[in-house]
Amino acid sequence: MEFAAATQKIGLIGLGLMGRPMGMNLIKAGYSLTVWNRTASRADELVAAGAKLAKSPQEVAAVSSFLLTMVSDPPALEEILWGPSGAMQGLQRGITYIDSSTISPALARKIAAACAERGVRFLDAPVTGGDWGAKKGELIFMVGGDAATLKAAEPVLSVMGKKWFHLGPHGAGQTIKLAMNLILALQVDALAEALGLVTGAGLQGEKLVEVLESSMARSGVLDVKAPNLLKGEYLPSFPLRLMHKDLGLALDLANQLGVALPATAAARETYNYVKGASKEDLDYSAVMKFWKR
Amino acid sequence: MEFAAATQKIGLIGLGLMGRPMGMNLIKAGYSLTVWNRTASRADELVAAGAKLAKSPQEVAAVSSFLLTMVSDPPALEEILWGPSGAMQGLQRGITYIDSSTISPALARKIAAACAERGVRFLDAPVTGGDWGAKKGELIFMVGGDAATLKAAEPVLSVMGKKWFHLGPHGAGQTIKLAMNLILALQVDALAEALGLVTGAGLQGEKLVEVLESSMARSGVLDVKAPNLLKGEYLPSFPLRLMHKDLGLALDLANQLGVALPATAAARETYNYVKGASKEDLDYSAVMKFWKR
Amino acid sequence: MEFAAATQKIGLIGLGLMGRPMGMNLIKAGYSLTVWNRTASRADELVAAGAKLAKSPQEVAAVSSFLLTMVSDPPALEEILWGPSGAMQGLQRGITYIDSSTISPALARKIAAACAERGVRFLDAPVTGGDWGAKKGELIFMVGGDAATLKAAEPVLSVMGKKWFHLGPHGAGQTIKLAMNLILALQVDALAEALGLVTGAGLQGEKLVEVLESSMARSGVLDVKAPNLLKGEYLPSFPLRLMHKDLGLALDLANQLGVALPATAAARETYNYVKGASKEDLDYSAVMKFWKR
Amino acid sequence: MEFAAATQKIGLIGLGLMGRPMGMNLIKAGYSLTVWNRTASRADELVAAGAKLAKSPQEVAAVSSFLLTMVSDPPALEEILWGPSGAMQGLQRGITYIDSSTISPALARKIAAACAERGVRFLDAPVTGGDWGAKKGELIFMVGGDAATLKAAEPVLSVMGKKWFHLGPHGAGQTIKLAMNLILALQVDALAEALGLVTGAGLQGEKLVEVLESSMARSGVLDVKAPNLLKGEYLPSFPLRLMHKDLGLALDLANQLGVALPATAAARETYNYVKGASKEDLDYSAVMKFWKR
Repeated sequence: MEFAAATQKIGLIGLGLMGRPMGMNLIKAGYSLTVWNRTASRADELVAAGAKLAKSPQEVAAVSSFLLTMVSDPPALEEILWGPSGAMQGLQRGITYIDSSTISPALARKIAAACAERGVRFLDAPVTGGDWGAKKGELIFMVGGDAATLKAAEPVLSVMGKKWFHLGPHGAGQTIKLAMNLILALQVDALAEALGLVTGAGLQGEKLVEVLESSMARSGVLDVKAPNLLKGEYLPSFPLRLMHKDLGLALDLANQLGVALPATAAARETYNYVKGASKEDLDYSAVMKFWKR
Repeated sequence: MEFAAATQKIGLIGLGLMGRPMGMNLIKAGYSLTVWNRTASRADELVAAGAKLAKSPQEVAAVSSFLLTMVSDPPALEEILWGPSGAMQGLQRGITYIDSSTISPALARKIAAACAERGVRFLDAPVTGGDWGAKKGELIFMVGGDAATLKAAEPVLSVMGKKWFHLGPHGAGQTIKLAMNLILALQVDALAEALGLVTGAGLQGEKLVEVLESSMARSGVLDVKAPNLLKGEYLPSFPLRLMHKDLGLALDLANQLGVALPATAAARETYNYVKGASKEDLDYSAVMKFWKR
Repeated sequence: MEFAAATQKIGLIGLGLMGRPMGMNLIKAGYSLTVWNRTASRADELVAAGAKLAKSPQEVAAVSSFLLTMVSDPPALEEILWGPSGAMQGLQRGITYIDSSTISPALARKIAAACAERGVRFLDAPVTGGDWGAKKGELIFMVGGDAATLKAAEPVLSVMGKKWFHLGPHGAGQTIKLAMNLILALQVDALAEALGLVTGAGLQGEKLVEVLESSMARSGVLDVKAPNLLKGEYLPSFPLRLMHKDLGLALDLANQLGVALPATAAARETYNYVKGASKEDLDYSAVMKFWKR
Repeated sequence: MEFAAATQKIGLIGLGLMGRPMGMNLIKAGYSLTVWNRTASRADELVAAGAKLAKSPQEVAAVSSFLLTMVSDPPALEEILWGPSGAMQGLQRGITYIDSSTISPALARKIAAACAERGVRFLDAPVTGGDWGAKKGELIFMVGGDAATLKAAEPVLSVMGKKWFHLGPHGAGQTIKLAMNLILALQVDALAEALGLVTGAGLQGEKLVEVLESSMARSGVLDVKAPNLLKGEYLPSFPLRLMHKDLGLALDLANQLGVALPATAAARETYNYVKGASKEDLDYSAVMKFWKR
């Protein structure tokens, strides 16, 4: 079963840095889009492009044959699904619901169970690629759930992303996402520690980055973040508070499972230190501020 | 001033996984090579290819216009330089001495001072690229010391490596090297923690690596080490005991400077745990054994 | 206002290692006691001593002029208060409700708000002193909430404990409790690390403990736990899974507040490692198993 | 064999916060004392009380039948023993030499071996008790070496201390000392983390300390240091730079042995952070400054 863009009505809840460009790509692809966001003004751009603005998550769900949620953390998602006029009570039997927020695998499984009771097909499908990937339609989806549901959803996913990985049952997408963010957070924190050491020794950080770029340690995220760390400019691309939250979710999962993560735990406290010391909303590369006092 | 291979006599002390292929490349390039190693049998291959085997570090130094040392740790280097029949007393005024071992910046500066007293030009020039890079002649040298000395040494370095970075005064090469190894050690440890989490949650580690390879976190070292971690096979390319030693040198330096490195300190203890629990000589990717009990 | 034991009807929910002896002391003091526990058989001893067994948390609340809850973690408490036949809907206007479980300060404040709506006076009053203190009636209560409510509750508290500290508004009791358990967990973990070091060096752990007992580092908890660590016997007095949970609550709070706790985070992962590696229910002094492989 | 105070000539090298009061107690007990210190003015008080001031460590050793050294770190001790006019070349066959500095067990064993060659009886005997204990003559000696040598030294030790523990062969005293300081450092760091949490939550740190003093976590060191942490006054009793050094020695030993110490490693970096951020010479309780920004 495939969805024809002409007939597929998509609902999108959560219009932040990621949700807005995802919605724009859906409109460009010809889908009929209904949206909702806690702060309604964030919908302006999409409404101008043709989206309908619903009055509640429930209303979005009620008019959609395909629902997508993309919010910042587990409590926000629980509020949207089970709060007053929540989406869960609006979901129609037979539709597909995909959550692309980063949440705990346990919450993903709880949503899957609630959807199953209502005859709704659910996938947890958090993304990687950043706001830049969202704009380009080049996100990567990490998917947990039923393979047939994923197959059916591919036409919609292909509008927003370039790749999707089927990783296992419900929760698997979130588990892999948390593991991926743990790696990204530690790579950036490792570069920050290395720069702290090198500059503390009186050398130029640029020298380290120059060597890094010829080395086996070079990675996409380090290419992108190294200039931030060197310049001390941390305009949010992926906000530190969200990376800090994701490290918390990874450690929660690890501590439920009895899997020790010593370096992740250490890095989380360094991100926490900077979160506590900073008033502004900074990119997670601002972990460097631990060393630039 | 350049060195003509025909007339340049090179001394090489330290014939381990790195020193042997470096020496072979020097011979292939036409240099006259004199070597010494604590375990003399390690010189066999080079001697068969034309190298002379000296009886002591001092003798190597005495016959060389260019000395290179490549040993496993600071005590080994101190023994070679200042021990009985040590190289330092053999060094001729006017020659160039390059140490490519990974040692503390403080020891590099101590050697530089001893060399200056003798009219010997010194560079600290540790390398990155692994035994594979040593064989291919594609090492990267991280150099601390005088720019003119580096300029004069380039013909010799070009035989063993593809790039050299002049990073600052004596000790700068070692400082950047320690910072680089800190990043490599944390990247591999981060992947191990992520795999520990994912497999602890009942998913296949291969799934994580599949996503990783499409992501911003992909790096050369993770491409090379991920199969080791997945298979649990850790044949030494860069031995864990040496990476553990380098993390110790990085932390020593950081603690002298008053620069806190929380994640490096945490990862060092995990490498330490595996070092303590393993009898064999394993690659540093064996840090994964902390999670594969 | 004071309560006369003769007329005060006390409800007690949660009959574990702590709740049972606390209930027994209330009966001995002459209070009329109604109890409930998820596993009903745990009530046998108290029922034999005169307690009434209710059918639900709601029923306990409905017949009590003073309610006490003592369960193992936040989800258990939420279930008891807001689950089916939950206590919250049974609470009578004007009564006093004291929770002595260890939970998050946020949950304590949420309960306080729900109680305020119903005209119920609430205190968060977690305890220290262990099961031994519970039996002897020598617990210490760490109290958050209104001073007048505490004053009125003192006759009941004095039956179970020897001291109570009024520490601030709702949540303050829990905050101080989490901080106290952090200190206890780190003291025991520090002794375990020290024993790991000393025995790893080939010395007898007993020698360290001998010196410790003459030193400024001597503490009650180390006196009690040192024999466990030396003998490798960890019969649960305070179970490791609960200490591990409390460290998680402390870190959750710290990460909400932006307060970095590096050593607590490191120790939590060591407790986590042992939790993951052990099947049995052990005392938290079993953190020593990280070093006794 | 016992020493008669009347005939025993004692040499003392190292006249810091600890060495001066130890020397004063030796003089008061009637011993003939010869001293040396790098900064000669530190000897004034002892000289005024009757000590002779020697011109070098060698001279002290040459005139002593019992030598005591008490310096701040391993390099200082190596300089005193093996540097120009070093003590080692002055030591007379048959005398007893006790080092009460805190150094690595490896260095203690190296000294023991050098002493054995010269027919000198050596003990490693670091102390606990602080400058206060040194003044009162109530130090505790942690002794490694030969039992007969310790027996013979007891009359001298008893002048400076109230207890001595024979802990094993050479190096055992230092090993236990490092383990003890690890426990002290973690206890104080744990209190600092707990106070950081409690005050970050808006509560008074004094409330935590009040509960602590009624709890199983109460210890001598926490009684002494808690007021410092609450007031933010850190006049050096045991300087932070020395505690930081001792944590480094403990971690060096642990990493040589393959014994992982995660919480010690985390706490060392926090002490390191404060060391790097502070100009003054503060007590180690100043680790609290990590939280009081």
